Amino acid sequence: MSKSISIFDTTLRDGTQGEGVSLSADDKVKIAKKLDALGVHYIEGGIPGSNSKDIEFFKRVQELRLTSKITAFGSTRRKGSVAEQDANLKRILESGVQAATLVGKSWDFHVHTALQTTLEENLSMIYDSIAFLKQKGLEVIFDAEHFFDGYKNNPEYAVAVLSKAREAGADWLVMCDTNGGSLPHEISQIVTSLQGPLPGANLGIHTHNDCELAVANTLSAVQAGVRHVQGTMNGYGERCGNANLCSIIPNLQLKLGYECIGEENLRTLTNTARYISEIANVNMPVNQPYVGNAAFAHKGGIHVSAILRDSRTYEHIEPEKVGNKQRVLVSELAGQSNVVSKAQDMGIALDPASEQSKHIIGKIKELEHEGYQFEGADASLELLLREASGELKELFTFESFKMLVEKAAGQPVVSEAFVKVNVAGESIYTAAEGNGPVNALDNALRKALVQYFPTLKEMHLADYKVRVLDDKDATAAKVRVLIESKNFENSWNTVGVSSNVIEASWEALVDSMRYALLGQISPEHVHAAEKRQGLVNH
Amino acid sequence: MSKSISIFDTTLRDGTQGEGVSLSADDKVKIAKKLDALGVHYIEGGIPGSNSKDIEFFKRVQELRLTSKITAFGSTRRKGSVAEQDANLKRILESGVQAATLVGKSWDFHVHTALQTTLEENLSMIYDSIAFLKQKGLEVIFDAEHFFDGYKNNPEYAVAVLSKAREAGADWLVMCDTNGGSLPHEISQIVTSLQGPLPGANLGIHTHNDCELAVANTLSAVQAGVRHVQGTMNGYGERCGNANLCSIIPNLQLKLGYECIGEENLRTLTNTARYISEIANVNMPVNQPYVGNAAFAHKGGIHVSAILRDSRTYEHIEPEKVGNKQRVLVSELAGQSNVVSKAQDMGIALDPASEQSKHIIGKIKELEHEGYQFEGADASLELLLREASGELKELFTFESFKMLVEKAAGQPVVSEAFVKVNVAGESIYTAAEGNGPVNALDNALRKALVQYFPTLKEMHLADYKVRVLDDKDATAAKVRVLIESKNFENSWNTVGVSSNVIEASWEALVDSMRYALLGQISPEHVHAAEKRQGLVNH
Repeated sequence: MSKSISIFDTTLRDGTQGEGVSLSADDKVKIAKKLDALGVHYIEGGIPGSNSKDIEFFKRVQELRLTSKITAFGSTRRKGSVAEQDANLKRILESGVQAATLVGKSWDFHVHTALQTTLEENLSMIYDSIAFLKQKGLEVIFDAEHFFDGYKNNPEYAVAVLSKAREAGADWLVMCDTNGGSLPHEISQIVTSLQGPLPGANLGIHTHNDCELAVANTLSAVQAGVRHVQGTMNGYGERCGNANLCSIIPNLQLKLGYECIGEENLRTLTNTARYISEIANVNMPVNQPYVGNAAFAHKGGIHVSAILRDSRTYEHIEPEKVGNKQRVLVSELAGQSNVVSKAQDMGIALDPASEQSKHIIGKIKELEHEGYQFEGADASLELLLREASGELKELFTFESFKMLVEKAAGQPVVSEAFVKVNVAGESIYTAAEGNGPVNALDNALRKALVQYFPTLKEMHLADYKVRVLDDKDATAAKVRVLIESKNFENSWNTVGVSSNVIEASWEALVDSMRYALLGQISPEHVHAAEKRQGLVNH
Repeated sequence: MSKSISIFDTTLRDGTQGEGVSLSADDKVKIAKKLDALGVHYIEGGIPGSNSKDIEFFKRVQELRLTSKITAFGSTRRKGSVAEQDANLKRILESGVQAATLVGKSWDFHVHTALQTTLEENLSMIYDSIAFLKQKGLEVIFDAEHFFDGYKNNPEYAVAVLSKAREAGADWLVMCDTNGGSLPHEISQIVTSLQGPLPGANLGIHTHNDCELAVANTLSAVQAGVRHVQGTMNGYGERCGNANLCSIIPNLQLKLGYECIGEENLRTLTNTARYISEIANVNMPVNQPYVGNAAFAHKGGIHVSAILRDSRTYEHIEPEKVGNKQRVLVSELAGQSNVVSKAQDMGIALDPASEQSKHIIGKIKELEHEGYQFEGADASLELLLREASGELKELFTFESFKMLVEKAAGQPVVSEAFVKVNVAGESIYTAAEGNGPVNALDNALRKALVQYFPTLKEMHLADYKVRVLDDKDATAAKVRVLIESKNFENSWNTVGVSSNVIEASWEALVDSMRYALLGQISPEHVHAAEKRQGLVNH
């Protein structure tokens, strides 16, 4: 039996049913390119019959000529009508895709309750819709909704649905555990039982994670003979999510010897997963299997000493196989070789044997001990390294800030900040309001700098996180603030730590602007003339 | 064969190995109480040999006389020594627990690489340590570390380890998939194969989620005959986490007919899981199976209309069975009966049919929609309910606050707060410094009130947590602040929400003091004389 698995990604369709997941047409194009590079076989782009965003996506994605097949999703024709005149089926044809996913009912209860039609009419709806699209030259993937619940309730009917779809020419018969309530042993038994009525059929599986078993259910189906797997990146999807391809692919490929996307592509999995979580603006859980930041992180003292002897002692695979890496949490980044290689990545020459490099490593360790975390703050790390290598030119220096929050009963709270910085020998004093203390500081600092550095207009704060580092002293505890900033092209992350949340925020804010100004020229020369003429407003 | 499963929770030990999970002794006591109420059979509290925090926990938890058995964790004795003199084993005895979990090696590779001893000595270490604790009257749970990797490499030795532990009197032989790399079919085969060499043994399972299969692996082991399940709440744990009891328990109980914690206790699962995530200050993923906020949330239009006809169409269980609820739109917690029963718990009479009760439910829904979370802030909820029932007497009212944070280059940051409150008709204006803005506000408010209410001297802030609620608007995003306060006898939790972290903190601070003053008498009478004599310092 073939060991090749066809991977069908539905991040762009079923994934967007997840709470907090919302993708623009542009987001979808970016993700499609990334999925294509990963090597998935099908990319389900959306529902052309449902909204203009999806129609735009299908139009734009055609121009990219991706290797992955783009598929459009839709339901079987409406009851009591004909396929040729069904608006949704027409939209699928118009979308220009090579393949369509058609969903049909296979649970008799649903035919009665949701569709409110007869079992026979449902079979005709399935047959007609598939036959129509096949006749138009499309590949058709048939998603049998609620197949397992249907089979448990009425096995003959569930099988009749698959047989009918096969008869109509469907290329794949996909069994869906739509409600996510099935268990691996049930999946295995039911799939195995199909060998009698549907010998040699091209079977697929589509599971949901309501019992935290979507990955296991998928493996179970593959081990029972299925060769087409549907899922989403990072397991996005309605309720508890769809089956997570980021876990399924390495399990199938590294553990069970199936061929999915090839060894080289698998090495890009972590990067792909993180990129998509950024585009979708959904935090990736640190403990996500295979691709999470903590997936190969070791905290316990005994574990760490064993890991250092042989990483197989506490790692089930080599993290590099999925593009992830080992992290030892106790002495965070540290490790001279780590820092030097990080510097190289940033194009900073740092001699591993030099005093300079020892000094900067000592400094990083000290900062990490104080609660800084550079894994999530590459820009702050880069500033430190460039400073240590002596190549950093500070374009502004801090003189002072004041931050005032004021509230009277029944009145809205008011936040104001007063910032004094020095640019090219000039002291600039600005004041600004904001909808919170950090926003006020951001506004005031930006106001001070933007007159010298107009590119700062293009940047904005995209994310702000506060973490209380230890609870011991309650309001005197240290906090760590992480800030993500963006301009049109890039995003960068900075960090600040203090027992004072305002000071920690300020620190991260200042780093963010320092980073934005890397490589810019001092305004000393540029603005000298204007300043003399009093054109620059202080 | 018995359908009873012994549930062993290791949130307080293995769970704290997770990145970002750090629990004080006090946090541990709170979680232990909650786990006891949930009905787990064992609560593993920590490692008495490792730190003073765990020693304190074991001391305090004894006084609670919980129903769950408290267990302490430790390794088998050191190589080449004797059990009686092993410092870790002694600490376990001194901790006063009834049960101990002893971890020993069962993978020959680890015996050589990590322990660096002989296979024979490892067997003696296991035998001696178990026999020693059994002789002292403890129940002993033996955790066979890396059992499945060990079995795959050297089945005879792995089995010999379990046999030796059994011979020494271990009450449970727990097979650990320490690296989380095993698959369900492997677990099933290996557990089944033990029936020959270990007939009738009390077997347990302990899995990790590195392949996103920890829950499936646990079910697989139970279906193969295991009757003791180890895991953590919300799946906390090193790397990708331990097996998640919040999914395992309902799967075993609702889907497979095993008896774990009983039907009634299962209804408290969601509340317990969320409470623990609040204490641990770890965001619960909205899509967490069974207990997540989106676990029964419906977004798709077709799904919603079917759900409204019959919820079985898109729900695999009734959410109430695990204490969760269906969400169609954004209509949060509340539920009239919930609120009414909560009020009863607090001794507040609230007529379910009254306008008053409808009003307060509406208010709570609105607040939850704004980002308030009362699961972790009972004191704020109680204040709301008492206010609604008309029985709350405010002993002070807020007039205004100002908060100033100031920093000059090279100088330490300074935080000052100015607070104006009204007590018994008198306006009091105070100022105070602090080591951060919240500390300054706390100091100023306390200074204002303590002269009227000396009992406030006894209370202090014990914990302070900040959570950014959504990342969309960066520094304008809402934050939720949770504050825990304590006096000699009690602790209570309050919440504040605002897009301004200072305002949110202030709100939680004020609630904390309002709660502390519940039941106290207005100083109008008490202090009338002193005030007239000018003895009270404003």
